[in-house]
Amino acid sequence: MALIVQKYGGTSVGDAERIKRVAERVVGAADSGQRICIVVSAMGHTTDELMELASQITPEPFGRELDMLLTAGERISMALLTMAINELGRRAISFTGSQAGIVTDTTHGRARIVDVRARRVLEALEAGNIVIVAGFQGVSTEFDITTLGRGGSDTTAVALAAALHADACEIYTDVEGVFTADPRLVPEARKLHAVSYEEMLELSASGAKVLMLRSVEYARNYKVLTHVRSSFSDNEGTWVREEDERMERAIISAVAHDTSEAKVSILGVPDRPGIASHVFRPLADEGVNIDMIVQNVAADGRTDISFTLPKEDLRRAEPVLDQVRGRVGARGVETDPDIAKVSLVGAGMKTHPGVAADMFDALADAGINIDIISTSSIRVSCVVRANEVAGAVRAIHEKFHLAEEAVIREAHPATVTGQLRALNPEGTAPGGGL
Amino acid sequence: MALIVQKYGGTSVGDAERIKRVAERVVGAADSGQRICIVVSAMGHTTDELMELASQITPEPFGRELDMLLTAGERISMALLTMAINELGRRAISFTGSQAGIVTDTTHGRARIVDVRARRVLEALEAGNIVIVAGFQGVSTEFDITTLGRGGSDTTAVALAAALHADACEIYTDVEGVFTADPRLVPEARKLHAVSYEEMLELSASGAKVLMLRSVEYARNYKVLTHVRSSFSDNEGTWVREEDERMERAIISAVAHDTSEAKVSILGVPDRPGIASHVFRPLADEGVNIDMIVQNVAADGRTDISFTLPKEDLRRAEPVLDQVRGRVGARGVETDPDIAKVSLVGAGMKTHPGVAADMFDALADAGINIDIISTSSIRVSCVVRANEVAGAVRAIHEKFHLAEEAVIREAHPATVTGQLRALNPEGTAPGGGL
Repeated sequence: MALIVQKYGGTSVGDAERIKRVAERVVGAADSGQRICIVVSAMGHTTDELMELASQITPEPFGRELDMLLTAGERISMALLTMAINELGRRAISFTGSQAGIVTDTTHGRARIVDVRARRVLEALEAGNIVIVAGFQGVSTEFDITTLGRGGSDTTAVALAAALHADACEIYTDVEGVFTADPRLVPEARKLHAVSYEEMLELSASGAKVLMLRSVEYARNYKVLTHVRSSFSDNEGTWVREEDERMERAIISAVAHDTSEAKVSILGVPDRPGIASHVFRPLADEGVNIDMIVQNVAADGRTDISFTLPKEDLRRAEPVLDQVRGRVGARGVETDPDIAKVSLVGAGMKTHPGVAADMFDALADAGINIDIISTSSIRVSCVVRANEVAGAVRAIHEKFHLAEEAVIREAHPATVTGQLRALNPEGTAPGGGL
Repeated sequence: MALIVQKYGGTSVGDAERIKRVAERVVGAADSGQRICIVVSAMGHTTDELMELASQITPEPFGRELDMLLTAGERISMALLTMAINELGRRAISFTGSQAGIVTDTTHGRARIVDVRARRVLEALEAGNIVIVAGFQGVSTEFDITTLGRGGSDTTAVALAAALHADACEIYTDVEGVFTADPRLVPEARKLHAVSYEEMLELSASGAKVLMLRSVEYARNYKVLTHVRSSFSDNEGTWVREEDERMERAIISAVAHDTSEAKVSILGVPDRPGIASHVFRPLADEGVNIDMIVQNVAADGRTDISFTLPKEDLRRAEPVLDQVRGRVGARGVETDPDIAKVSLVGAGMKTHPGVAADMFDALADAGINIDIISTSSIRVSCVVRANEVAGAVRAIHEKFHLAEEAVIREAHPATVTGQLRALNPEGTAPGGGL
């Protein structure tokens, strides 16, 4: 008998009526002969409301207590969903993250799952129950309640699916799947039938919000067949799975964009060994997440270093940058929040040269200037002005004919030329085919 | 170093400002050199709001899931209170009922505490923390989350105080303590300095809402020195403790009243052995709580049986009563929701005759008719019309000079005469001194 893990996000369980609709869907799946384990997020804006309560008490709550507070959210949604399933005449039972055996490290607020002891869930499933598990939360190795950070419920679902050897993990969300671009920017964007784990990783890291990065990492590591689909329709969504032949035929899967980052440039840095470390070590120590890093070739013994970071980290980064500037003897530091990152992702990129050049062409033809370029073996990312992001996404989407069903897309020989040495956070070399 | 358990009710932690005030009080107590363990209820009307959410899903939620839902309430309040104490620069740590080792039986919705494994709380206290524990909740011997029923946080506090061998258990509430009568009915009512466990038991069972019955039972069984006081002032409240000489000097402690019950009379019941069992067994099987029971002496081989029960149980009781009437061949069943119970409680009653007669005199002088009488060794209760309850409480309060500081109150020899054989739920014989 197939075992399916289904995850429902906060929008899907936003009020009593929606919870009842989810219950009907769950019971429908159970009636079709599947064993069902549900992972559920907190209702609608519950988590935000709890955060607001905490902020009325203290500007900086301790992580342990904030986790204790926030985990009340899934407790409410999961109990209500269980009641709704019971009300439909099916046996259902709810478990907190702790009861479900989601064991994490002790990092409050963004704990990592270190073990899933799913015995109790498995027993409840074998006893004929539909099992409902609180997403986003676990219990640490020190027996404290932890949360997994933003999008943590996806990770709970994938981790449970791995531990239960589920046949699939269905991520129900408020969109129909993974698209070739954000349909709000590109109306003709097409829903993808499947993407590889690696592509999904790059898309999530490049601003696609449909699946959080960590859940995709988990899915890749444990080979969890994941199905991203809408909780408001019965349509098939997008499968995230191991790369196969069918996928390889499509060089490019999608174009993603991200407007959540800001750019920092440290200008006129003396070009000597160890400089990058002097710049980035203090930022790492402050917990600032750096994304793209580029360093121009030196002229007159000096170089410029640019990088992007989440806008929300900018305030924390600024005093550190001030110190760094003095210590390395840079000429100045510029910060620019009005940027956006546009990324082209595709597993076939590795073996097809010229993709990057085509992308740069598309942007040039649209009159859009590129500020920073960064690449991995299956991704090319460009930083552009924030107000040009929609045009950039549309131009690239059109250039690669992404609205059309997967065919081999021609690419023209070209190379990345010129001034930039591209580094990237994964530490992998840029794909030879760029 | 003294160890105090403090319990704060939902009103005391009703919003962020009140939580901050409680935090200040707690830190004040800690600064005075006491080790402090806090038990906290859900904020304000949280529990009612969660119940309302559940009712939007199903009219009859399963107990297990309702408990899962409701326990989110204390999770929120305890995390916020812990943050507020941290914000004042003191180390504090919160524990759920389960983490605090509150082990219960498996009766969802009104579980009974079967064990308190307070090792983790004790270790946290010894490490210098103020410990905050979620009231009202525990974990069952089957590892499910349970709740203790109405007033359950009081029971959590007393049980923790017993397990921790605390020097006292302070119950913070929205009144100043236990009064000689409800001050809303009797403005001159006086706050009692102390009452015995037995008196408090009778008062709680007679409608005094300041402490729930089960917490008082627990306090008596484990000899927990309990201090009922206001969270809005620094005044000393009322001590609930073992009977001592000082208490014995006051024959009467207080008059309580209760308007939550209805009266049922089964008329013209054949007077033969086993009739009472035929009446009350089916009600007990239905989970109906019976309070006072009186049976008149028989005339012409028939008798009337009257009893009181919570109004909220009336709907469930009525079909049972219909069947009972047919089965025992009674002439009829009358139900009357417009009644009130007035009770006089005092440990000294046991050794001072005439208290009951004085009480009846007081009611007679006020022109108030008595419908049912029931007694224990330290209590006399009368059922009167609902609209006469305030007058009855005032008349009795005045008759026994309860507004005056404890002195030996004179009582006149008298006996309960006439038609009534008084039974009472405790199964003890009426006090010889009545």
